[in-house]
Amino acid sequence: MAKQPQTAITPTRKEDYPEWYQQVIRAADLAETSPVRGCMVIKPWGYALWENMQRALDKMFKDTGHENAYFPLFIPMSFLEKEAEHVEGFAKECAVVTHHRLEPGPEGGLIPAPSAKLEEPLIVRPTSETIIGAMYAKWVQSYRDLPILINQWANVVRWELRTRLFLRTTEFLWQEGHTAHATEQEAREETRKMLDVYADFAENWMAMPVIKGEKTADERFPGAVMTLSIEAMMQDRKALQAGTSHFLGQNFSKAQEIKFQSQEGREEYAWTTSWGVSTRLVGALVMTHSDDDGLVVPPRLAPKHVVILPIYRSDEERTRVLEYCDSLKRELEAQSFGGVAVEAIIDDRDLRGGEKAWQHIKRGVPVRVEAGPRDIDAGKVVRYRRDRGPKEKEFIPRDQFTGEIGAVLDEMQNNLFDRAKKLREHNTRRIDSLDDFRDFFPKEEEKGFSGGFALCHFTEGDPEMQKIIAELKVTPRCIPIDGDDEPGKCIFTGRPSPRRAVFAKAY
Amino acid sequence: MAKQPQTAITPTRKEDYPEWYQQVIRAADLAETSPVRGCMVIKPWGYALWENMQRALDKMFKDTGHENAYFPLFIPMSFLEKEAEHVEGFAKECAVVTHHRLEPGPEGGLIPAPSAKLEEPLIVRPTSETIIGAMYAKWVQSYRDLPILINQWANVVRWELRTRLFLRTTEFLWQEGHTAHATEQEAREETRKMLDVYADFAENWMAMPVIKGEKTADERFPGAVMTLSIEAMMQDRKALQAGTSHFLGQNFSKAQEIKFQSQEGREEYAWTTSWGVSTRLVGALVMTHSDDDGLVVPPRLAPKHVVILPIYRSDEERTRVLEYCDSLKRELEAQSFGGVAVEAIIDDRDLRGGEKAWQHIKRGVPVRVEAGPRDIDAGKVVRYRRDRGPKEKEFIPRDQFTGEIGAVLDEMQNNLFDRAKKLREHNTRRIDSLDDFRDFFPKEEEKGFSGGFALCHFTEGDPEMQKIIAELKVTPRCIPIDGDDEPGKCIFTGRPSPRRAVFAKAY
Repeated sequence: MAKQPQTAITPTRKEDYPEWYQQVIRAADLAETSPVRGCMVIKPWGYALWENMQRALDKMFKDTGHENAYFPLFIPMSFLEKEAEHVEGFAKECAVVTHHRLEPGPEGGLIPAPSAKLEEPLIVRPTSETIIGAMYAKWVQSYRDLPILINQWANVVRWELRTRLFLRTTEFLWQEGHTAHATEQEAREETRKMLDVYADFAENWMAMPVIKGEKTADERFPGAVMTLSIEAMMQDRKALQAGTSHFLGQNFSKAQEIKFQSQEGREEYAWTTSWGVSTRLVGALVMTHSDDDGLVVPPRLAPKHVVILPIYRSDEERTRVLEYCDSLKRELEAQSFGGVAVEAIIDDRDLRGGEKAWQHIKRGVPVRVEAGPRDIDAGKVVRYRRDRGPKEKEFIPRDQFTGEIGAVLDEMQNNLFDRAKKLREHNTRRIDSLDDFRDFFPKEEEKGFSGGFALCHFTEGDPEMQKIIAELKVTPRCIPIDGDDEPGKCIFTGRPSPRRAVFAKAY
Repeated sequence: MAKQPQTAITPTRKEDYPEWYQQVIRAADLAETSPVRGCMVIKPWGYALWENMQRALDKMFKDTGHENAYFPLFIPMSFLEKEAEHVEGFAKECAVVTHHRLEPGPEGGLIPAPSAKLEEPLIVRPTSETIIGAMYAKWVQSYRDLPILINQWANVVRWELRTRLFLRTTEFLWQEGHTAHATEQEAREETRKMLDVYADFAENWMAMPVIKGEKTADERFPGAVMTLSIEAMMQDRKALQAGTSHFLGQNFSKAQEIKFQSQEGREEYAWTTSWGVSTRLVGALVMTHSDDDGLVVPPRLAPKHVVILPIYRSDEERTRVLEYCDSLKRELEAQSFGGVAVEAIIDDRDLRGGEKAWQHIKRGVPVRVEAGPRDIDAGKVVRYRRDRGPKEKEFIPRDQFTGEIGAVLDEMQNNLFDRAKKLREHNTRRIDSLDDFRDFFPKEEEKGFSGGFALCHFTEGDPEMQKIIAELKVTPRCIPIDGDDEPGKCIFTGRPSPRRAVFAKAY
């Protein structure tokens, strides 16, 4: 006899982590694949998470002096040829527009009209440094025109062979900041400032602890002088790069002629930066907090904080119960949490109570309450918290429930962060020998799980190291900015090494 | 000797309306052309207007039960072939993606890799009925799955030969609502409801009076059963279609197999609608309110409501004046207008006072105040309103100024609406003969000006009418919903006609 699943999601994380991830997304109705290869459809609940992320980030960008603008979707092919490393990195797998008209074909149906072939193909932007740089070159004449601090919310396309919802899709949504400065120092400060903004957002909104660090040369953004990133550990102990901030030096400004007359009257090239986060963050959120019953959403990003489930058996009861629920809703919405009004919904759909409750569990609504005639008589509600077991109920006086909702959501937000941080700490090791390194990253993954984060001394660009990490499918994620600077010995070559890097398998 | 221009914008509206429009956009720093044919760059001030429009509309959509989602940028070519009229309308001038990789070409540079040719070309969405419909076909099984009420904020591409900033660009930003319903009546009600939302937004946020009406068959959206639109009159007396709402009947659901089992157990096709507004609204806003000194922004959509200009001559004065301005700013921001906090900025840039003031006039900031040492001594400010002449100043006690700011902004919002409405009324005629019609729409436009709106009896689809209106470059804009239903005689054919349509030259 087949064993009944004990959890809402099959398989569980332990049984098969990658498949569990897909099933959580399906059960929470976040997104699904589309008929267009590699492109996803973001469904309303998933899009609402992204909207909440956007709202929080957008405010942080504006508070740090940035403005939004919008640049073309298309990039002339010749623009990509200008910055040599950038070509290598981005001019390969991309969507190429070659025609601007369809016409009826000889065998019926439509074909790209041969007479409407573009003289120069257009690329659907994989990132916008080149087209934005071309505009900055026009806008910047004098040091008085600097800095330019602009952000763009947009869709981008990178032709991916293997895709996974949110984590790697051909089209994705993101924001890209592009700034130009008169001095190197100011551009470097900007690069670092935006990394801090991302870390702040990841930790305080997503409840996802991150390591801030610098990428090694091999992992840098094509064309960048320095790439900073935030790296998070997922529950399968793999790393996910959750945001990057690039100091581009004068590489792009030289390729694109972003020149200005300095205060001293000299012609100089501007110093530029770029930085971005994407809908990949939704995948990171899913993999950081969710459990074997489905999605778990940190309250600060939850589209709804509380769902109220009325319980009744007759029309008479219904009237009384709905009245009670309405007043609960109003009282909840008069409360605030994280600077916004608490969002509550009443789910009075004509479905079995269990089915409804499980839907909201799988979608990760932080707090669920039930109210029926007996609860009303007692002036109470039945409360369930999504950071606890699905059947752990509490009977609570209604005034207490509504009065403490902000504090409870805060506590849940902190719990999620602490839980994720403990997981990371538990699975991070300082590793000082190659044997230990090989033990930590077994060649055969068990049900999708990896060893964790290994902090190791290393030698940048060493071919022996490259060989070993390629074999183990591990990469240096970053050199932590807040790490100790104790020198040591590279575990791959034995050579002296000034600092450790975080090594991990990564998404 | 050349005459000095008396206005900030050259030419004035009267001198050359189309050129004036371009110059207002340039002077207000709203947008500019890009190196990509037909695509514009929306600069921060222009994008802030669009963001404010988005925020207001998004709330209205959510308040009427809609959710946001996101669908792919690309549409497989075969999808466009499914709905016959839709093919005709949209499968023509569009961006066609044929390759997914670039590679080094034989003569240097890059070329689309012949080995990476797509089996089926992809179209960059000109509108998303087909791709969204394909998903709805999967999502809808039973009447319980209906209605689906989804909106998407997105970029779309229609290859345009003649482009004009905001009004007609190859790529533009928009929202597209797509809904599916179990009954015809419900879908028709949705179509009308969203038209009302658009009219409400146009009149109460953009301060732009509109006529709600139904399109004649020739002007319908390709594939629609009925298209409703809102039509506004610009200052050159031409019409601008500012939003459309389409009842699609079962045309798309049949082409895309959006079927469901009804409550009675029958298999039925869903009834669908779509509706949209775009960045074209920014162009409409510019042309409705701006004057010969530049942009005029209705306060409810202004990114900043008040700019404070400190006036001083010495460092001592500077400290004192800036303190005064800071406290003014704080007091203003404690006031609210239209449900949000008043947004004020202090412009303390090192520029001549006149230069600064004119920048803000040209950008359309609703209220400008100056404060210098003598104003402080008198406890006053100097106030200028953008709906009055640029030199009409008022000396006002500071408490009065800050206390009444909400009321002043309200008054300005209403003034702009009233002014636009008067213009429309003044230039709208009931016309009952072909001679009068020809007189009203002179063949040669004078400096870009047209006659206005002509309300005429007509015969739908009559070839004689088609010939005349084509010659005069006039189109039936809509059959007003709120118009009188008095019957009359078609001015083109003499045949009986039940209702008048609005005829106009249009953008």
